[in-house]
Amino acid sequence: MKVSFDDLHKAFESRVRLGIMSALAVNDSLDFSSLKEFLDVTDGNLSTHIKKLEQEGFVSVNKSFIDNKPNTRYSMTMEGKKAFDEHLGVLEQIINSQKES
Amino acid sequence: MKVSFDDLHKAFESRVRLGIMSALAVNDSLDFSSLKEFLDVTDGNLSTHIKKLEQEGFVSVNKSFIDNKPNTRYSMTMEGKKAFDEHLGVLEQIINSQKES
Repeated sequence: MKVSFDDLHKAFESRVRLGIMSALAVNDSLDFSSLKEFLDVTDGNLSTHIKKLEQEGFVSVNKSFIDNKPNTRYSMTMEGKKAFDEHLGVLEQIINSQKES
Repeated sequence: MKVSFDDLHKAFESRVRLGIMSALAVNDSLDFSSLKEFLDVTDGNLSTHIKKLEQEGFVSVNKSFIDNKPNTRYSMTMEGKKAFDEHLGVLEQIINSQKES
């Protein structure tokens, strides 16, 4: 077996970023507190990782107001979905290569 | 679905360390140059990551001489195997939770 570890995306090496992408893959959009609750991380930690995914172009941010209160929602971009799917595909190869042995 | 991202082991977040463990999981032992070739990384990069896995107690090092030449071989420890299997189990949950959606 030859798994292409290089195809694992560096942006998803972090557990928190893997978690953010997993959550956004199955929800059209999520707000900060939902993501925080889902991942059980601190505000600062989550902010840092969301910013990194934004910079990669994998997550988009939509700021609006609901009842005059600011509401920020995060979504996965098409580019993010493509990269994340590829990443999971390589992880699956790794898992399968272990099962064959 | 609720995947326990916390159960992903920090030691395996790095692609290179994931690769080292994958290779050692299917080979009783490997020498430095075999690992290097398998992963296509530099000497320095590989050394750093092996050291980290050694410190975690996940990889053991066996130094010997073959024809008066030093030969260093790396193996996965029982503890390493247990931790790696758990890690792959969580990754599998993540992949499956995406497929269900």
